[in-house]
Amino acid sequence: MKSILAATLSIVTLVSSALAGPVDDMLSADRTFAAMAKSDGVPAAFAAYASDDVRMFPEGGASYQGRDKLVERFAGWPDGAMLEWTPMDGAAASSGDFGYTWGTYVFTAKGEDGETSSYGKYVSIWRKDDGEWKFIVDIGNQSPAPEPAD
Amino acid sequence: MKSILAATLSIVTLVSSALAGPVDDMLSADRTFAAMAKSDGVPAAFAAYASDDVRMFPEGGASYQGRDKLVERFAGWPDGAMLEWTPMDGAAASSGDFGYTWGTYVFTAKGEDGETSSYGKYVSIWRKDDGEWKFIVDIGNQSPAPEPAD
Repeated sequence: MKSILAATLSIVTLVSSALAGPVDDMLSADRTFAAMAKSDGVPAAFAAYASDDVRMFPEGGASYQGRDKLVERFAGWPDGAMLEWTPMDGAAASSGDFGYTWGTYVFTAKGEDGETSSYGKYVSIWRKDDGEWKFIVDIGNQSPAPEPAD
Repeated sequence: MKSILAATLSIVTLVSSALAGPVDDMLSADRTFAAMAKSDGVPAAFAAYASDDVRMFPEGGASYQGRDKLVERFAGWPDGAMLEWTPMDGAAASSGDFGYTWGTYVFTAKGEDGETSSYGKYVSIWRKDDGEWKFIVDIGNQSPAPEPAD
């Protein structure tokens, strides 16, 4: 009886982890990405996690494609500015190689009058390239104030 | 000879449509969605194409989840306002049941001083629910001016 229960529990665990797997993996990649932005800087982290064919949708700017262009644009990242984000949730395709995460962000810039922060939310679309999750789309927009999870 | 050529062409057509299929299908759904916004109004079109568990990321507002909430919010759609969009491209998961489209939009509002337009770009994430493409995420942000395809 005990072993039947154990076997059943194992199957339940396997099935639910097969479903949760890709979303958890993408959220984990997104968190490591955010941690790298803190430790190594925003431009280095974006360059490391972007796919070759990434498509970027900067607020107030035109969309553009390619990691090379991303690196070029992020070279102008302002001194002392920081983008911090908190992955919240996401969803994945049944193939487990494609999905998205979303979260909230705080952008802090240093100006003459000290620091100013703006708040927003973002969506990243991820694709598994040779076993590694890379984001193929990045888009965000502003929120009026820090928002709770919904 | 003719029949061999015809068979070969059929196979080529089948293979390329299997690869292009999901992205073309999502772009086609997105175009029909945009056409419905023109013919039936923006609120009706969004209600028709949103998944039950849709997650919305309105510019300047907090994110929210669920078609019921979407319908509630869009009930306040301003008289004479129009959202027109042009799907440009996208990508799909290998399972063919999940992907995204992106495009550009023009939002036109009627005010006391006539019409004012604002321009932007958007990303919609799509999932195939019981054979029908529904969007599960909608997010956009502003662009400085009408932008060409990139």
